Amino acid sequence: MGTLRKITLGIAGFGTVGGGLLQILSMNRDALAARSGCEFVVRTVCVRDASRPRGVPLPEGARLTTRLADITEDPAIDIAVELMGGIEPACTFIRGALAAGKHVVTANKALLARHGTELLRLASEKGVRLLYEASVAGGIPIIQTMKESLAGNEVCSIDGILNGTSNFILSEMTSKGRDFDSALAEAQRLGYAEADPTLDIDGWDTAHKLTLLIRLAWGLDYPCDKMPVQGIRGMNSMDITYAREFGYRIKLLGSARMTPQGIDAGVYPALVRHTYLLARVGGAFNAVRLEANALGALFLHGQGAGALPTGSAVMSDIVAAARGTMPLNSGFMSQTPLPASCLPPEESVSPYYLRFIVKDNPGVLHTLTGALAANGVSIAQVIQKEECAEGVPLILMLHAAPAKAVNAALDSVGRADFLCAEPVAFRVMG
Amino acid sequence: MGTLRKITLGIAGFGTVGGGLLQILSMNRDALAARSGCEFVVRTVCVRDASRPRGVPLPEGARLTTRLADITEDPAIDIAVELMGGIEPACTFIRGALAAGKHVVTANKALLARHGTELLRLASEKGVRLLYEASVAGGIPIIQTMKESLAGNEVCSIDGILNGTSNFILSEMTSKGRDFDSALAEAQRLGYAEADPTLDIDGWDTAHKLTLLIRLAWGLDYPCDKMPVQGIRGMNSMDITYAREFGYRIKLLGSARMTPQGIDAGVYPALVRHTYLLARVGGAFNAVRLEANALGALFLHGQGAGALPTGSAVMSDIVAAARGTMPLNSGFMSQTPLPASCLPPEESVSPYYLRFIVKDNPGVLHTLTGALAANGVSIAQVIQKEECAEGVPLILMLHAAPAKAVNAALDSVGRADFLCAEPVAFRVMG
Repeated sequence: MGTLRKITLGIAGFGTVGGGLLQILSMNRDALAARSGCEFVVRTVCVRDASRPRGVPLPEGARLTTRLADITEDPAIDIAVELMGGIEPACTFIRGALAAGKHVVTANKALLARHGTELLRLASEKGVRLLYEASVAGGIPIIQTMKESLAGNEVCSIDGILNGTSNFILSEMTSKGRDFDSALAEAQRLGYAEADPTLDIDGWDTAHKLTLLIRLAWGLDYPCDKMPVQGIRGMNSMDITYAREFGYRIKLLGSARMTPQGIDAGVYPALVRHTYLLARVGGAFNAVRLEANALGALFLHGQGAGALPTGSAVMSDIVAAARGTMPLNSGFMSQTPLPASCLPPEESVSPYYLRFIVKDNPGVLHTLTGALAANGVSIAQVIQKEECAEGVPLILMLHAAPAKAVNAALDSVGRADFLCAEPVAFRVMG
Repeated sequence: MGTLRKITLGIAGFGTVGGGLLQILSMNRDALAARSGCEFVVRTVCVRDASRPRGVPLPEGARLTTRLADITEDPAIDIAVELMGGIEPACTFIRGALAAGKHVVTANKALLARHGTELLRLASEKGVRLLYEASVAGGIPIIQTMKESLAGNEVCSIDGILNGTSNFILSEMTSKGRDFDSALAEAQRLGYAEADPTLDIDGWDTAHKLTLLIRLAWGLDYPCDKMPVQGIRGMNSMDITYAREFGYRIKLLGSARMTPQGIDAGVYPALVRHTYLLARVGGAFNAVRLEANALGALFLHGQGAGALPTGSAVMSDIVAAARGTMPLNSGFMSQTPLPASCLPPEESVSPYYLRFIVKDNPGVLHTLTGALAANGVSIAQVIQKEECAEGVPLILMLHAAPAKAVNAALDSVGRADFLCAEPVAFRVMG
């Protein structure tokens, strides 16, 4: 092996992922040495509350601090690892570490979605690495795949199951017939969902990750706050059941594709044909399906969260920075993504699943189909289900249509008095 | 963009993959420039027969030659791309190019399985890159994932569907009820199988690829000729049908796992539980499932062959060499893999599917179960199927047992006169 090169780490944040990283550094010390020729020494760990007990012991010789400057201002530290999450103080910390000429490894998708362009520019000016494999899809090597393996491709589309919490909830509803609230409670009990699950179940976590993937696919900045985002909150188990009957699973997708009018991107629950690998992603797993003009379709599936899988992704970035590989942070020569031209969400075209609950009156179907026809939307299939407590469920599977046409049809039906509940519209994949 | 750096290529071999690479160089010129800052110029293409017409035009300014030395001896060429396949003259060509200080990109698994260690050593001595992403699983970025993304892991196991031809044949037999010969003929008609399909259907192509994956997982050399290799030639559609009835699909797997006694590796058709993603790999697709101690399970699925997907993998290596990334050819500091200690194949432990065709005599099941019991093999399930033309099919699903115990039991039954056909034994996954 010869002598090992010493690489000194400063880690900000000692939660789940920080603990996972320390575990990996200790349990895989030999593998790391064999693969990188380096000995990784943790010099400083910064936490908010130094008195809190931790499940993972601090490495020998490491100093616990509550001052982030003990990392950014320490010239002995080669790589600053940001695992705090949130916007501040993480952003100031990363800025400070980059400005001090340190490589930075982070798992912070919310921060990168919002300030990634600025931070990438700073890293590029300083000639250091800003690596973020752990920020999307946990242990799945999607960032590296997009930077390196797709180098000879034009990316056509990205479809990802990027939020394990939402996928766990939908899987529980599908396989165990639970309703939304009980599935969410189960996710919280198992530690898959936070006490405040807003970011996860309302789709924002997926939107942050999709923003990063768009940047890597096309070198373009899609403003996250312009993205149409619909989560799974309040998902009705009726729709899960009907989707299943028709051969689909409902999944929360982050999707983006390049169109001649700009990037068509969004986050929404969608019916995915059961024969698709994406439909087979169960529990808290994540998956990404890429389509590119040379590669064709590529599907990656793995653990989207958890101490060790996410720690593994952080570790691969640390090794890359130590090895001196991956000089490109953005995957493009231009280290600063350009603003994307975005397809207006209402122009986005997709097949749809519509579900109404109606009174059993004459003329109802005639009115609904009339509203769709008037907006040029064509129907693939109509299924009337048996009457339930709320009324008669009526499902219309639509051929591909622009969102604005479907919305206009729904608006024109408005609050018709034959509607017993707000209509539900989901996109359909496959 | 600024000025592009010129990278000069010499390509040996102008078959399917060579044509795909030239197509990518031309159709994705802009994407390549944006991602690498380079202009890739093909200076020389070497073919066996210069008069043969080609489907893809030669790039402007490129010279067609039949002399490999026109590439290896040309100091203007930065990267030599070997796409001829076979052992010679490919080996001499790569050796020559490395010796001349050129980076080499190859898709040649048979050559790397046999001479990889020598060639990796030479590349390391010369300080150049020997990259081979296209040699395993076509467009799937498995080589890079193992080198980079698993850097912080101990790899536990690899299970791959690595031969598209065999998977296509098994898929046709499963979904269309074809017999082996007709499925093979269909694969040949569609261009998925060569006129001589030996390497594919007898498992050797999978064995070559598995040898490369073992090297990347553990930095160890498993001698390919010591590996137990069983292909799918003559697969009986009866077993496909029974497997399906029990909730399994038969797949040709290349599998390796680290055990305390050494690497347990082999190529064999196996029953894979239908809920596993590996069971869902259809047609000519490839997939790899990795398990590692931090990452957990990772599943990659994509096009295992074809001009553009394989060309895409070749292209990603060319870009990596041009970018100056990935200085490690082997994924380990030691660029020369050490000899592996191999688990003797007869010690390998697995659940099994056994299928007999027997005469409808009294005592048959008693004799069979006795032979298993005498060898310490325990039975999970016995299914007697309805009598067919050849006799009565009898299926025994076994709990995990060492191969030697199962083989000894089969040997002791020997050529018992109640056997109407040679017994069939397949491993079971899941």
